[in-house]
Amino acid sequence: MTVETARVDVGVLMATWRDRIETQLSTVLESAAPARASRLEEAMRYSVLGGGKRLRAILVYAAGQALAADDAALEAPAVAIELIHAYSLVHDDLPCMDDDDLRRGRPTCHRAFDEATALLAGDALQTLAFEVLAGTGQPRAAEMVATLARCAGRAGMAGGQALDLDAVGRQLDVDALMAIHHHKTGALIEAALSMGALAAPSVQPVHLEALGEYARAIGLAFQIQDDILDVTGSTEVLGKTQGADALRDKPTYPALLGLEEARLRARDLLDQALAALAPLGERGDTLAALARYMIERDH
Amino acid sequence: MTVETARVDVGVLMATWRDRIETQLSTVLESAAPARASRLEEAMRYSVLGGGKRLRAILVYAAGQALAADDAALEAPAVAIELIHAYSLVHDDLPCMDDDDLRRGRPTCHRAFDEATALLAGDALQTLAFEVLAGTGQPRAAEMVATLARCAGRAGMAGGQALDLDAVGRQLDVDALMAIHHHKTGALIEAALSMGALAAPSVQPVHLEALGEYARAIGLAFQIQDDILDVTGSTEVLGKTQGADALRDKPTYPALLGLEEARLRARDLLDQALAALAPLGERGDTLAALARYMIERDH
Repeated sequence: MTVETARVDVGVLMATWRDRIETQLSTVLESAAPARASRLEEAMRYSVLGGGKRLRAILVYAAGQALAADDAALEAPAVAIELIHAYSLVHDDLPCMDDDDLRRGRPTCHRAFDEATALLAGDALQTLAFEVLAGTGQPRAAEMVATLARCAGRAGMAGGQALDLDAVGRQLDVDALMAIHHHKTGALIEAALSMGALAAPSVQPVHLEALGEYARAIGLAFQIQDDILDVTGSTEVLGKTQGADALRDKPTYPALLGLEEARLRARDLLDQALAALAPLGERGDTLAALARYMIERDH
Repeated sequence: MTVETARVDVGVLMATWRDRIETQLSTVLESAAPARASRLEEAMRYSVLGGGKRLRAILVYAAGQALAADDAALEAPAVAIELIHAYSLVHDDLPCMDDDDLRRGRPTCHRAFDEATALLAGDALQTLAFEVLAGTGQPRAAEMVATLARCAGRAGMAGGQALDLDAVGRQLDVDALMAIHHHKTGALIEAALSMGALAAPSVQPVHLEALGEYARAIGLAFQIQDDILDVTGSTEVLGKTQGADALRDKPTYPALLGLEEARLRARDLLDQALAALAPLGERGDTLAALARYMIERDH
């Protein structure tokens, strides 16, 4: 451990923020719903409001709080990033991608509805993310849209998913796997922290750099932990099929490094994330506690 | 005919604008391409640069020109709307939707690549649309993003596609069919005209209203003409499978109204569109000529 962190009761804070984002997401998905395409609306709500860790929204809130952003300015980016995440899961679960039946302990969207509806629901969730983000009238709304789009698109999340597709059944080394995850998972985590920072009235470059470095470290640590849980967790606790990655012959960190070495890597990345927060001083305590949570979680 | 229109050589103008948007789209898709996810990038280029009428981009340029917008301010919205249109076609052609093999005279994206790549390419094209639009630094960039997202999402294009799915195999009346197309096709045409107007330095409300009314009329006329061409056109000229709608038991205007009545409706809508342009005076001439083109086209 390279940085002392104060005693932040991160569990309580996360629960509060989780309630907050659930309320925001419900409002967005229920209030403006047009009466017509009811099955699409239902599929969108099903995919977003079906639980989830809300880590990305929590990171928006935490980054914003660390840099003294107004609470109100954080709602749109928090909602937007969860909508993007939800869209990516819906499309990732489709038969032509991972063909998953279970997500968050319930049937995946295309199982609960049908493939066409799931496709459209994912599409419309992505669109809604940008609609919410652009519709706030905040001075830096366009910058937030540009940031989120850059991180979610071909050079970020979608690009990472494409690299992931190419990798199925092929022999990868750890560096190649890290490159995939840097895009596939890390980019959206970077977006969460950047948008939280953009919501603050003013940000020093050194703080932005700190958040970027923190984001890259926890993004990767988070993915390694996901892979570890795919090996060690139970389907019941995970809410998705345990061992699914291995069955699908997907490269994972435990498969390439062994379980122990994978755990050590995650721990190293945690230390890097904590060190990166140093310029923020005490304001980084919550982010530090979140980083710990992310690699110590069991689901 | 309710409005006199000057002799605008719309064919020449459209060809010029088509070249302009092709150049813009190539630049966006080729310049910033990251080296890694090459198959995804290739599928994106294939889907966007494979020809097309570029009517939506042309409407952005025409609305902007009518309201004295700077040329430079129109490129991002023109690119963005074509990217959204291209994404919707890629996803619409997928097996779980229309299951089409042919688009613009070539194999559809999932035929030329594979389903997963086509899914991701559509996703990333949507994201790129918002990235381009938000990245301009234009004062009204966020408003453009909000407009495009509203028109492309659950209350617009995606909502219309969901209504269309629900309608397959069911008996619809003309009003229900019009409601579907108002969303599915009309919303994006409205977005094109609104974004063109938002690029202008200042816009009078009466002009915005005129463009909205014009958009709604040509949007519907365009769709009716599409349905007519599906019955009367040849696969060769259309670049897509002739008679595909009828085969799929999709409701169409000619099926509900008869071919002659469908043609009359399209003509009525053209008159409405031309009448709507009256407040713009001579500045509406190009838009008037475009409206004529859209319902007189044979492909």
